[in-house]
Amino acid sequence: MDDDSPQSRWERRTEGPLAVALLLFLGSYAVHVLADGLPPEWKDFCLTVLFGTWGLFAVDYAVRWRLSGQRLRFVRTHLVDTVVLVLPLLRPVRIVKLYDAVLRRRGQPRLSLHARVITYATLSVSLLGFAGSLAVYQVEHTAPHATILTFGDSLWWACATLSTVGYGDVTPVTPRGRIIAVGLMACGVALLGAVTGSFSSWLIQVFSTERGKRPPGN
Amino acid sequence: MDDDSPQSRWERRTEGPLAVALLLFLGSYAVHVLADGLPPEWKDFCLTVLFGTWGLFAVDYAVRWRLSGQRLRFVRTHLVDTVVLVLPLLRPVRIVKLYDAVLRRRGQPRLSLHARVITYATLSVSLLGFAGSLAVYQVEHTAPHATILTFGDSLWWACATLSTVGYGDVTPVTPRGRIIAVGLMACGVALLGAVTGSFSSWLIQVFSTERGKRPPGN
Amino acid sequence: MDDDSPQSRWERRTEGPLAVALLLFLGSYAVHVLADGLPPEWKDFCLTVLFGTWGLFAVDYAVRWRLSGQRLRFVRTHLVDTVVLVLPLLRPVRIVKLYDAVLRRRGQPRLSLHARVITYATLSVSLLGFAGSLAVYQVEHTAPHATILTFGDSLWWACATLSTVGYGDVTPVTPRGRIIAVGLMACGVALLGAVTGSFSSWLIQVFSTERGKRPPGN
Amino acid sequence: MDDDSPQSRWERRTEGPLAVALLLFLGSYAVHVLADGLPPEWKDFCLTVLFGTWGLFAVDYAVRWRLSGQRLRFVRTHLVDTVVLVLPLLRPVRIVKLYDAVLRRRGQPRLSLHARVITYATLSVSLLGFAGSLAVYQVEHTAPHATILTFGDSLWWACATLSTVGYGDVTPVTPRGRIIAVGLMACGVALLGAVTGSFSSWLIQVFSTERGKRPPGN
Repeated sequence: MDDDSPQSRWERRTEGPLAVALLLFLGSYAVHVLADGLPPEWKDFCLTVLFGTWGLFAVDYAVRWRLSGQRLRFVRTHLVDTVVLVLPLLRPVRIVKLYDAVLRRRGQPRLSLHARVITYATLSVSLLGFAGSLAVYQVEHTAPHATILTFGDSLWWACATLSTVGYGDVTPVTPRGRIIAVGLMACGVALLGAVTGSFSSWLIQVFSTERGKRPPGN
Repeated sequence: MDDDSPQSRWERRTEGPLAVALLLFLGSYAVHVLADGLPPEWKDFCLTVLFGTWGLFAVDYAVRWRLSGQRLRFVRTHLVDTVVLVLPLLRPVRIVKLYDAVLRRRGQPRLSLHARVITYATLSVSLLGFAGSLAVYQVEHTAPHATILTFGDSLWWACATLSTVGYGDVTPVTPRGRIIAVGLMACGVALLGAVTGSFSSWLIQVFSTERGKRPPGN
Repeated sequence: MDDDSPQSRWERRTEGPLAVALLLFLGSYAVHVLADGLPPEWKDFCLTVLFGTWGLFAVDYAVRWRLSGQRLRFVRTHLVDTVVLVLPLLRPVRIVKLYDAVLRRRGQPRLSLHARVITYATLSVSLLGFAGSLAVYQVEHTAPHATILTFGDSLWWACATLSTVGYGDVTPVTPRGRIIAVGLMACGVALLGAVTGSFSSWLIQVFSTERGKRPPGN
Repeated sequence: MDDDSPQSRWERRTEGPLAVALLLFLGSYAVHVLADGLPPEWKDFCLTVLFGTWGLFAVDYAVRWRLSGQRLRFVRTHLVDTVVLVLPLLRPVRIVKLYDAVLRRRGQPRLSLHARVITYATLSVSLLGFAGSLAVYQVEHTAPHATILTFGDSLWWACATLSTVGYGDVTPVTPRGRIIAVGLMACGVALLGAVTGSFSSWLIQVFSTERGKRPPGN
């Protein structure tokens, strides 16, 4: 995708607006979920922003489908894009593209591979954890026998889940809340894998560098 | 086993039927466990399918024993096969053979090593988690002081165990349920190891590729 | 230690008896802890075996100290040996020596490095978990507000701790029980590290082998 | 920083005093938090030591800023130093410098890379866990519905969090306690990563050494 094809030009130009749209989407979703006592006109405004930004995601998806010249195969070859279109709360997983674009634009020397992996994993998992907390709070806080009663509880529960600590003092009790929780657990396992894997490969690199400095006989 | 011996021919031909038998086995076990209000004739049918498929596994094991020309040593050299014959719910661990066979038959370029390991681990752990949930539900839901009362609870508990999150809001209380749980914990540790190990070796590969692109003086 | 010095001769000859002594030690400790209604003479016999085997460990330590020709420095250079003398329940960590000795004696081709690490970690962690369960049961089951009331509870708790799942349905409540628990947690983290590290280095090895098979131009 | 610039001379000379100041800081904080029935003059003395050592940290930071010749950029390029100045309880993460200095001064052959990483991780995580336990105990033990009532509870909770076991029998309930807890969870994930990564790279090193011993044809 480093060539100058219409697809990559489109992707470069839409990266910024789509990132703003993602933040708007998460922000309006947060206001929609958290602000109970909002006057109706504000609620409508929130929903408008929510669906408007989602519409932007859909337009972007449609344009890229058109530019690719593919038919139904596009859905399969761009599976991640399709999933984050249907479930826009999962969109933070695509942040890696934006992150690379920012680094490129600022002309900074790129960070080392391990620093990039850990930065990306932390950013992406934080946004996913925030989106997951919102969704779990929405479906849980009015359920009977719920233990997640405030958004603070929900954030606390998401942190304990993502680090695979899992205290269990507050846990989702509804089927929908538990399905979202399973998704966060998977993110937690992946986060552990990313941190551990980066550490491991960094140590191996340091070790081979230390060895390389000695005369070859050792 | 890439040669054309009778053993490998037998294994190639039985891969498909045995996979269907495994799905039938898990399906009939699920119906047997979950459908309480089933009329007796359906229950008998389920049990027939259950024992029929298990009989197929036994026949396959016997034929391969015969073809190997080994005596009692076969039991020791094919320890995994022996274990999954005695405890057929553990059979999903053998899915790696089927998975490789499917890839071979479709002539697809094989996935990268890391993608294969993660796909296999996910598939195998999902089926084992499903089988474990069924078994735990069967032994727990009628026990006194049980917290796992519905199959949904059991699935939720299995997910929390496999990701090593372990909330503890629902836990097995009977000795048999706890023995199954220890098996699932071992699967969870292995899953973490597989995900982390794949990530780590993938990063090391990317790193060595990046280094390979630079002139050798650096 | 592959030379024929008095130390290594002593170590080779005492490996077998010390392993038997370790099993006798754990067995008599188990009987001492678990068998409440034992007649007094049996209890005395158990304690005799317990202290007798501990005496053997002490004699072995003293002989090796003498043979080493070192003074107080021996305590520091053989720190692990000193710790397992004072806290004999930790002695399973020394099983790696016995395990290597068994493999050597049977003249078997040694297992691959990864299989050896996982086998050793599993063996050692199982024995440590068993010893930890006994110790926690001993200090907990009579404490006020205790949740670990039976040895089954204690084993179940030890498994959940070693896999870092940590349900929290049963947990130690006394300070001594919690100190033992912290030791088991450290074992759990080390077990995770061993499993993950083995997996990771095995994958890297497979990967480099696959690459080595291709022509060097790729 | 291996040159003889004023900065590195300053850092070498202040390493020892700053380590003593860190221990004094943690000690006086511990006395301040734990000793409820202390006479007022002792309390004042504790606070004096607390703020005095913090003042030393500030002076060290200011001198290094001055010596660096940088303006506001210093805050960004020395982000870790800035964070541990504002939140001195996080200062144990800088222990790696002290640890290296001690090894250098004693002229010891440096430990292997993996042993150094595990030693540093253990030391640093122990001190952070101790500081975290103190802070959580301070904000929790008087809160309504608190479960962390004694400093023993707080230490026990910190161990369960750092190993990612997470029983959940005692958990923070106040927002401030939970924010500190999230920090400890992150330390736990990093500890797991360090242990696993060290193990993994150590195995890979042993493996490549074993391969190197064989004739090159194998």
